[in-house]
Amino acid sequence: MTTLPTLPLEATSRHVLAIDIGGTKLAVGIVAETGELIDSVRTPTHAEQGPDRVLERLLDLSHSLLRRSPVPVERVGVGCGGPLDTRRGLIQNPPNLPGWIDYPLVRRLEDSLALPVALDNDANAAALAEFHFGAGQGTRHMVYLTISTGVGGGLILNGELYRGKRGNAGELGHIQVKYDGDPCNCGGRGCLEGYASGTNIARRARDLAVLHPESMLALTPRAEITAQTVLAALRAGDAVAWRLWNDTLDLMAAGVASIVNAFDPERVVIGGGITNFGDLLFPPLRQRVTQRTMPALMSGVEICPAVFAENVGILGAAAVAFRERRGVIQ
Amino acid sequence: MTTLPTLPLEATSRHVLAIDIGGTKLAVGIVAETGELIDSVRTPTHAEQGPDRVLERLLDLSHSLLRRSPVPVERVGVGCGGPLDTRRGLIQNPPNLPGWIDYPLVRRLEDSLALPVALDNDANAAALAEFHFGAGQGTRHMVYLTISTGVGGGLILNGELYRGKRGNAGELGHIQVKYDGDPCNCGGRGCLEGYASGTNIARRARDLAVLHPESMLALTPRAEITAQTVLAALRAGDAVAWRLWNDTLDLMAAGVASIVNAFDPERVVIGGGITNFGDLLFPPLRQRVTQRTMPALMSGVEICPAVFAENVGILGAAAVAFRERRGVIQ
Repeated sequence: MTTLPTLPLEATSRHVLAIDIGGTKLAVGIVAETGELIDSVRTPTHAEQGPDRVLERLLDLSHSLLRRSPVPVERVGVGCGGPLDTRRGLIQNPPNLPGWIDYPLVRRLEDSLALPVALDNDANAAALAEFHFGAGQGTRHMVYLTISTGVGGGLILNGELYRGKRGNAGELGHIQVKYDGDPCNCGGRGCLEGYASGTNIARRARDLAVLHPESMLALTPRAEITAQTVLAALRAGDAVAWRLWNDTLDLMAAGVASIVNAFDPERVVIGGGITNFGDLLFPPLRQRVTQRTMPALMSGVEICPAVFAENVGILGAAAVAFRERRGVIQ
Repeated sequence: MTTLPTLPLEATSRHVLAIDIGGTKLAVGIVAETGELIDSVRTPTHAEQGPDRVLERLLDLSHSLLRRSPVPVERVGVGCGGPLDTRRGLIQNPPNLPGWIDYPLVRRLEDSLALPVALDNDANAAALAEFHFGAGQGTRHMVYLTISTGVGGGLILNGELYRGKRGNAGELGHIQVKYDGDPCNCGGRGCLEGYASGTNIARRARDLAVLHPESMLALTPRAEITAQTVLAALRAGDAVAWRLWNDTLDLMAAGVASIVNAFDPERVVIGGGITNFGDLLFPPLRQRVTQRTMPALMSGVEICPAVFAENVGILGAAAVAFRERRGVIQ
């Protein structure tokens, strides 16, 4: 197997245009091979306008960034919510982008920008961002787990993004940690996402607030309870919030232990909104995962926070472009 | 990435000596590149004799097979229960081979047989056997799951055995399907092995036999209840056995769905004693996994029985040797 260096720095650094398409915001930037963000712009997506008008604004932003760029840009990387077809460059009706049905995004961008364009889904892009520029640097086997509104993942195995047969590997939010648990939208039961995502932490907190009027959680109007409400209650030592959080940590630990046992990674990088829980998350999660994992597998596995938060989308899109430039097309 | 063909057949087929070291039996054979077993011998391990005397008998068998071989043999493959160190060729105190502590098996074999020797653990060897010669032929992404006394796994990703950072990837018996379930020897809770292995199916059947004296399970003396007892009771339509089996199928389905969601394989090959359950296992397991998995991930995943049973150890050891011959050393 030919092994490519993680980050082939050359005499003069190369630059790419990075495009991050989210359901609520668009971000476009110029990124150096070192991960340095040279320039960037952000704007609301207005997904309700449909793909052609969103693309139009995306192209305006891109051309304006390219015009004012102090450096030459040699290619374009795009990160976008899936499902999508990386080979054919199509966006295939993601839940957060209504109307993008087999939308030929790559061809449209290439036609207008006259640069080669590479596309990947947002979780893979984020995994590549951490691997090339962030918390995964120096590893060859890294699992990226993002816990936010939903739970997703990206796998770096033997130094390369692993996609599986149909490009869907790494759906780590649908590891089933409670085989007889709550039904999940995916068809499964007891999926990690069904408990650990911000949405589901909030949902369980709302249920507990009704059952426990003495809890701090009940001070917030029920519909306004979020994961942040839970975090505030934890910091105040609320017993009900702590029971919820300890259970969540156990569920997460079962998921991460399963990941460690299946992949034997060097590092599990956790990103997404959950990282706001900081020291309430990482030390107890590490302790639980260590307890739940064979010593031979656990020794040397690091569980660490992602480096990038706000910029992970744009740096991920850049990493997709740099990866493609090295000719690694899987 | 350079891709090697799955089975590079050449003008004249090559042959290897394959050595399968189990806790209860040793098997040695001569195997062609096609997977054909040319000759083989089996003998009890007598593990209580310790490594040197076991090795002595292993070498006697090997030399005798090599002397009478009708074909030239160019290398040796060994499959053995782990933990072991494939790079240094050491057996590292497996539970079923007492006294094999950092035992330099590869060097000893090479010194005596004067042929290059490659070593891998039994689950990886079995995965390679199915991939090269059996149920995994023609795939590039195959997960092998063996459910017997214990539960183990082997991963073929992008056409190669995936080992992870420390060579321990594929511990699929320790995917945790019930985060608050029974403690497992590995330190985890609710591990797939803790419910789905033959040992644990029998354990749960013994508990049920006490609670349900009306069940067919209670007709067998408690200490003699095995997974085979459960199979007989299922065939006779015993309601208690069916409740146990349906729960076991749900647990297995959660594990396999997690595997499909994490790896996006083409095929999940299930081997080991559990395959004796035949049509009581595969059709309902497929149905449950399909229900529990996202359509995009499940479409096209096959869940099928391993081809090899008795010979999987010897063919696995052969596959380890052929794999090494192609220069794929990870």
